[in-house]
Amino acid sequence: MAAWAKGVRAVLLDVSGVLYDSGGPAGGAAIPGSIEAVSRIRGSGLKLRFCTNESQATRDHFVRKLQRFGFMISEEEVTAPGPAAKKLLKDRGLRPHLLVHDDLLPEFDSTDKSDPNCVVIGDAAENFSYQNVNHAFQVLLNMEKPILISLGKGRYYKETDGLKLDVGAYMKALEYACDITAEVVGKPSPNFFMSALAEMGVKPEEAIMIGDDLINDIGGAQSCGIKAVLVRTGKYRPTDEHHPDVTADGYVDNLALAVDILLSSKGSQ
Amino acid sequence: MAAWAKGVRAVLLDVSGVLYDSGGPAGGAAIPGSIEAVSRIRGSGLKLRFCTNESQATRDHFVRKLQRFGFMISEEEVTAPGPAAKKLLKDRGLRPHLLVHDDLLPEFDSTDKSDPNCVVIGDAAENFSYQNVNHAFQVLLNMEKPILISLGKGRYYKETDGLKLDVGAYMKALEYACDITAEVVGKPSPNFFMSALAEMGVKPEEAIMIGDDLINDIGGAQSCGIKAVLVRTGKYRPTDEHHPDVTADGYVDNLALAVDILLSSKGSQ
Repeated sequence: MAAWAKGVRAVLLDVSGVLYDSGGPAGGAAIPGSIEAVSRIRGSGLKLRFCTNESQATRDHFVRKLQRFGFMISEEEVTAPGPAAKKLLKDRGLRPHLLVHDDLLPEFDSTDKSDPNCVVIGDAAENFSYQNVNHAFQVLLNMEKPILISLGKGRYYKETDGLKLDVGAYMKALEYACDITAEVVGKPSPNFFMSALAEMGVKPEEAIMIGDDLINDIGGAQSCGIKAVLVRTGKYRPTDEHHPDVTADGYVDNLALAVDILLSSKGSQ
Repeated sequence: MAAWAKGVRAVLLDVSGVLYDSGGPAGGAAIPGSIEAVSRIRGSGLKLRFCTNESQATRDHFVRKLQRFGFMISEEEVTAPGPAAKKLLKDRGLRPHLLVHDDLLPEFDSTDKSDPNCVVIGDAAENFSYQNVNHAFQVLLNMEKPILISLGKGRYYKETDGLKLDVGAYMKALEYACDITAEVVGKPSPNFFMSALAEMGVKPEEAIMIGDDLINDIGGAQSCGIKAVLVRTGKYRPTDEHHPDVTADGYVDNLALAVDILLSSKGSQ
């Protein structure tokens, strides 16, 4: 029996690369077994929360896509960087220049964007044109004290037609060009994991994070005292099992198998 | 009298931001006084070499542009990263995937680019689309041991209509996404400065570098034992005079004034 599965009361699930692979005309495809795996977690009485860095769409839009794929999921169960950033901007009186995906823009409809005093970047994909990235750079360099807020810091993610550069790469480009350090909203920020736990009312040692991103999912969760399992789907690469800094509490072929282990452990407790 | 001007036998001139500002329909405009300043260096008997990180065009094309602006300059006097990279690729049997400006492509006409085993990035400007940067990323990640060669590592440069992101920002994006370190050809690489000195037949302590980039021109030259003066043109920003790591040997308003100081020092020796 896997040690990581003992005493778990709550599951934090990464979404892209664990539940589905994005891309293509349909916006992606469910990973085999994952739809049933989510249902089985629900049926088991374990608490469940989706903890995603997806910033290509509003949370509402994102949830509807997953429902179309067949997942049982509601907006209130999703911790995502868009809403977290919106709250941060409001709390600190920041007015963003946005370099994000068109589909994320409605998340900031009610946010004051006049006379920007910060830049917010998300996974803008095709919107990461030279012109747009350069514009964000110029806005930052015109500030007395540039503030860059990044929705996650992922290196890349997997779409149905291959690996794609994620927001982290462009965050690094702007950090270097402006000689600044970005503030990250989303995984691996401890605040992000802790707010997901608070919403479930559990302690770090009672939860398990399941993800395909060694640094952001596994390393991020572990830094909060949450155990974390890497699935061999999505952006997983074999070298992830021999990383110098981060070692997962478990490595499992996919979400369905992780849930098998989790539920058999629960049954034997 | 300025201490940096003493005992100078050879001048290394950065080009963009010192001789001219690039951009606009004419490809840029000479900085006032700089055409005469170059002529006066020539007339003084000082050795002269142009040491540029410009990688938006072949050396030939670049020199013809400067001649059009009125500068006396020949291709043999220019140390540029394109030809240096071409030599490096040949010496090491590397076949590049190129992410460069269209106008630099002819520099690599005779280079074998089949089945790439490295990626070369230059100042690709508008060619830094999400699609192109992502493609370079995928090529790198498909290599067993990814090799990224960057033509310079500048943060930004000045065009007539504002500051523009330079190759260094995209180098950092790819370094981060692939978890690798790029090899830099061009300033501030010591090899690059030393080959320029060798072509003039002078020692580091006999030369002066004049540039507008504190890190790449000033820091780079100083790391080779070459004195270096920052001009307050091009990408210069007042904060450059209070940098925690790099202090220029002199700060001068523009090239014309730097040459005034240099030649009056020479006259008084």
